[in-house]
Amino acid sequence: MNKAIILAGGQGKRMKADMPKPLFKVLGDPMLEWVIAACESAGVSDICVVKGFMGEMIDEYLNGRYKTVLQAERLGTGHAVMQAIPFMEEDTDGNTLVLCGDAPFIDAETIGEALEYHKQQGNAATVITSELDDPTGYGRILRTASGISGIVEQKDASKEQLSIKEVNSGAYWFRTADLIDLLGKLNNDNVQKEYYLTDTIFIALSEGKKAGAFKSANPELILGANNRKDLLELNDIARRAVIEKHLENGVEFVCTDGVVIERSVEIGAGTQIQPNTILRKGTKIGSNCVIGPNALADHCTIGDNVVLNASQAYDSVIESGVTVGPYVHIRPDSHIKTGVHIGDFVEIKNSTIGEKTAIAHLAYIGDSDIGKKVNIGCGTVTVNYDGISKSRCVIGDNCFIGCNTNLIAPVKLGKAVYTAAGTTVTRDVPDYALAIDRGVMKVNEGYTLRKLKSSK
Amino acid sequence: MNKAIILAGGQGKRMKADMPKPLFKVLGDPMLEWVIAACESAGVSDICVVKGFMGEMIDEYLNGRYKTVLQAERLGTGHAVMQAIPFMEEDTDGNTLVLCGDAPFIDAETIGEALEYHKQQGNAATVITSELDDPTGYGRILRTASGISGIVEQKDASKEQLSIKEVNSGAYWFRTADLIDLLGKLNNDNVQKEYYLTDTIFIALSEGKKAGAFKSANPELILGANNRKDLLELNDIARRAVIEKHLENGVEFVCTDGVVIERSVEIGAGTQIQPNTILRKGTKIGSNCVIGPNALADHCTIGDNVVLNASQAYDSVIESGVTVGPYVHIRPDSHIKTGVHIGDFVEIKNSTIGEKTAIAHLAYIGDSDIGKKVNIGCGTVTVNYDGISKSRCVIGDNCFIGCNTNLIAPVKLGKAVYTAAGTTVTRDVPDYALAIDRGVMKVNEGYTLRKLKSSK
Amino acid sequence: MNKAIILAGGQGKRMKADMPKPLFKVLGDPMLEWVIAACESAGVSDICVVKGFMGEMIDEYLNGRYKTVLQAERLGTGHAVMQAIPFMEEDTDGNTLVLCGDAPFIDAETIGEALEYHKQQGNAATVITSELDDPTGYGRILRTASGISGIVEQKDASKEQLSIKEVNSGAYWFRTADLIDLLGKLNNDNVQKEYYLTDTIFIALSEGKKAGAFKSANPELILGANNRKDLLELNDIARRAVIEKHLENGVEFVCTDGVVIERSVEIGAGTQIQPNTILRKGTKIGSNCVIGPNALADHCTIGDNVVLNASQAYDSVIESGVTVGPYVHIRPDSHIKTGVHIGDFVEIKNSTIGEKTAIAHLAYIGDSDIGKKVNIGCGTVTVNYDGISKSRCVIGDNCFIGCNTNLIAPVKLGKAVYTAAGTTVTRDVPDYALAIDRGVMKVNEGYTLRKLKSSK
Repeated sequence: MNKAIILAGGQGKRMKADMPKPLFKVLGDPMLEWVIAACESAGVSDICVVKGFMGEMIDEYLNGRYKTVLQAERLGTGHAVMQAIPFMEEDTDGNTLVLCGDAPFIDAETIGEALEYHKQQGNAATVITSELDDPTGYGRILRTASGISGIVEQKDASKEQLSIKEVNSGAYWFRTADLIDLLGKLNNDNVQKEYYLTDTIFIALSEGKKAGAFKSANPELILGANNRKDLLELNDIARRAVIEKHLENGVEFVCTDGVVIERSVEIGAGTQIQPNTILRKGTKIGSNCVIGPNALADHCTIGDNVVLNASQAYDSVIESGVTVGPYVHIRPDSHIKTGVHIGDFVEIKNSTIGEKTAIAHLAYIGDSDIGKKVNIGCGTVTVNYDGISKSRCVIGDNCFIGCNTNLIAPVKLGKAVYTAAGTTVTRDVPDYALAIDRGVMKVNEGYTLRKLKSSK
Repeated sequence: MNKAIILAGGQGKRMKADMPKPLFKVLGDPMLEWVIAACESAGVSDICVVKGFMGEMIDEYLNGRYKTVLQAERLGTGHAVMQAIPFMEEDTDGNTLVLCGDAPFIDAETIGEALEYHKQQGNAATVITSELDDPTGYGRILRTASGISGIVEQKDASKEQLSIKEVNSGAYWFRTADLIDLLGKLNNDNVQKEYYLTDTIFIALSEGKKAGAFKSANPELILGANNRKDLLELNDIARRAVIEKHLENGVEFVCTDGVVIERSVEIGAGTQIQPNTILRKGTKIGSNCVIGPNALADHCTIGDNVVLNASQAYDSVIESGVTVGPYVHIRPDSHIKTGVHIGDFVEIKNSTIGEKTAIAHLAYIGDSDIGKKVNIGCGTVTVNYDGISKSRCVIGDNCFIGCNTNLIAPVKLGKAVYTAAGTTVTRDVPDYALAIDRGVMKVNEGYTLRKLKSSK
Repeated sequence: MNKAIILAGGQGKRMKADMPKPLFKVLGDPMLEWVIAACESAGVSDICVVKGFMGEMIDEYLNGRYKTVLQAERLGTGHAVMQAIPFMEEDTDGNTLVLCGDAPFIDAETIGEALEYHKQQGNAATVITSELDDPTGYGRILRTASGISGIVEQKDASKEQLSIKEVNSGAYWFRTADLIDLLGKLNNDNVQKEYYLTDTIFIALSEGKKAGAFKSANPELILGANNRKDLLELNDIARRAVIEKHLENGVEFVCTDGVVIERSVEIGAGTQIQPNTILRKGTKIGSNCVIGPNALADHCTIGDNVVLNASQAYDSVIESGVTVGPYVHIRPDSHIKTGVHIGDFVEIKNSTIGEKTAIAHLAYIGDSDIGKKVNIGCGTVTVNYDGISKSRCVIGDNCFIGCNTNLIAPVKLGKAVYTAAGTTVTRDVPDYALAIDRGVMKVNEGYTLRKLKSSK
């Protein structure tokens, strides 16, 4: 079986945060996750992650999804891969892909095509390469008629070699058995006293084994991040690529400023994404919606023809034809059913809102089950917390909840219940009844005149 | 009289939406509307729109403003124009402009100057051209000493012709009588079996009529959109041009990210537009305002020295010296008078707010007429809907509405009325009176200690 | 002592606002302030500002911080500097820096290094220069082996001189005594009848004094703004430079669209700034915060691990571990202590909120002192204004304020007081007591059926 080893031991000092470099995020996902996702999507799912600096954070992140091995000392890329020899020895028949955990834009297509080429050519080692307009600093690929004769580092390159634009991406396919063998022959006879993975290519060639280079069409696979500025650039590249994908799918953007859409988000054709909208992973949006401006949806399922204007929604379901906003906060575990209208300054939390119900303004609905065609008056509060525990409110279909009503949970209102404005509902109310708690309004004539007089 | 024929039959398959291509919007207006506006602004108001794909949407959009004719089969641009022959025959004395309905940046100046040139030269046909740095794909203009000798398509051009940078924009002026005549001579002897409008130029020249080219200084008039990405680019171009116009007028922008201002919006000098502000058509803003960040105004008239901070306003009038926001929603048919202060989490709908009135926080004012120098307390709700019908609240000058007051419409408060916090006002209150509906607050000593004890 | 003269008399007609040009702002500060700050930071704090157009606005802005002199007639840069002769005569021993008040990007390093060079070379005058890719329009520097032989204006330059890329920035160091002397020898024998400061260089050279040029590594010091578009460009340059500085300090940005951070803002490493966030001067943010999207902080001190989501905060202190938003408005003089949670649609004004207190939704806390671990129910309003004066509410530790409670200030609640939902608290409540003001909820059966019947 084919395997992958992902090198994730780097520190990223210039990031100025105590975290392994591959855990810094691009568009909401750690760079390591991008690399893993590319492997999985290319069908390579037997993966070992080599951890180093703050390796426990890698384990915590992976949470057992993949094996990890520790490179306790930082003695070079070859030494990192050596730590995975026991992992490779589990099955030495196939090929092993070596990837950098902080080069997030490696893609499944490149991985797959490079493997094809690697096998077709009968290579012991195949380096994945890319052609750069400015190759400065990268190892140049020395091609021959049948493969490659080596990789020459910038500092060792002749003037002629410096003009080569094809460079080493740091990703490789090896025949697993050959890689184990070659690693055993690596030495650290160099200034840094490190074991370089690149040297395996020279050893293979010197032993008469075949080495080749697969040039990917994706020049971005070479990009990594050593500091926050690089990371911002990776985010920008990823952000633009995602928007471009949605444009192709028929999503409308009038201005993409501030639009951040994470990779896995799905959006139907004809939906308009307005400026400054953030769509986080786990979000799926139907067709012909208007999302934004200034909307944020995180792990939400949103139907067709939904309006989400200047509002935030988390871990919730919003069915088709719902209009939300501006200035609405939908908190987790809410289910807003078809045709609901939620106006302004409304919070919904852990509640179900029935079809065609209207919550037009200034209300808090928490831990509640609201029926269909209910009208929730302005200032309505579900009093779901008594300082000790939380309880639910249940409101039947066609209820009319008057303004500034307090519903003291647990409480249940039947069908078509009417509550008078300003009422505090303290016990259940049967179908079709009116609940009212209101004193008699008194009028105290001339009050203001007296007040002004006495205040002088 | 001069006439215009606008070709609006295209589909725009790659947009992935069932809509005629000219109806896709640039900066809030369908591309067709941009083309119509250029004609109108150039004084050409006898217009016929040739519809095709989903032509009924064109009719629905135009709503009778201009004639339309249907091109039932898609047999080329020449065939499209043929459908408008009856329209032209209404008056054959003048000239006819032919425009693409999906090239929104044609401008009135070009239309006017091209007509002048067309008439001066005594041309039967004048093609409007543009010079492009990269003319690839466009028909090249073959100029002669006195006019043009033809238009050569990319695929038919010689190497020398390919280096010509002047290209056909797809817009033309014709002498109306000549165009009718030339259309009658068009044939579809070509691979596509289509009637090409371009062929009219060759026929005219072959008959000894004069044809010329008018080169516009505006290279953008050639731009169209075949997919959502193109459309986004057109939006970006339009967006930047509008911002540049306002910069020239003395409007201040610190950062234009997320700023989308539709074409017809007017803004006075010295007004600052902060990031992520959207100004939709029908909006007129005075001088020395601060609009944004995150503001949206749609069809609003806004005076001088207004602050609109992180708020949305629709179809309303906001007079000078008003401060709004953050987080305010002004819904249609509101009239906010001079010097009003509206704070946070306030919705105003279909209401008049008198001079110097303050609505500082968390209130809903709907279907109401509020006087001058009124203070609306926090949590005030105009209860304008009883589940069956909507009614108005009237509040006189100098009233002081206590916090969490419910005003049950219809209700009228006189001048300088004072309502106690928490009161539900159920009937009219005379001038200077206090309205109060409040029980006696009881104190239950040691309650919390007993509650905690019992909960254990 | 060394001195600086800042020329701030210009009008900026194309800005279309009645204000001296140096008062137009870049990233929240007048350009004049940028120039003053560079002087101060280079240790030059004896400054004289030459005012002209609407000079009273310069005085109003400076508010006595620095001397000003008026150039009553606009007779050239030399004439402007002449107005400062009495200022120079106070102490003629040192050197005098002359700067343009509308070229904001002069930097302290350039000022300091240029002075060193000026003194080392024994120059009477040293012009500060910059090398531009496109020097068109600027005065070119004519260098000699030992210094310069002059500055030639664009219109007077030979073809060879036009190819010189080193240009005059308009900033100079002079020996003070020499400058006074040279100004006395200036004449206005030119078409404009103006006194040009540049001519001092020629006079100095003609008298055998030494003049030199100091080339700054900062090409932006030459940039000024003649219109709103230039000003927007200066803002963009400043905006990007500030973001870059924070990136280097380990601040995370995923997308910088709409992010505007003023110069003096401090941000700790590991803090994430989300899109469309505005941080105004006087703001200091700790580490590992998440600020934005759509946040605005102005003169705030914010601790570590703070979340400020889609909220605005002004002149307040927010301690570590506080979560705020979305849609919160923190007004001046608020102090939010460690671990507080403020949810949505909450306004805080001139109040102290104790440790771990929660204000989850739809509340107004103004002029109040809230203790620790208090729970403020939804819809709570501190009624701090009675129409005549404002008073404070004091709430003890561990209180539980029921929903839609009105607290009529001045009022004091002891420790662990509980208020029933809907209560209007009109007098002080002792420790552990319950305050309740609630009628008896009545149920009127069949009400809705009767109502519907009667409405038909």
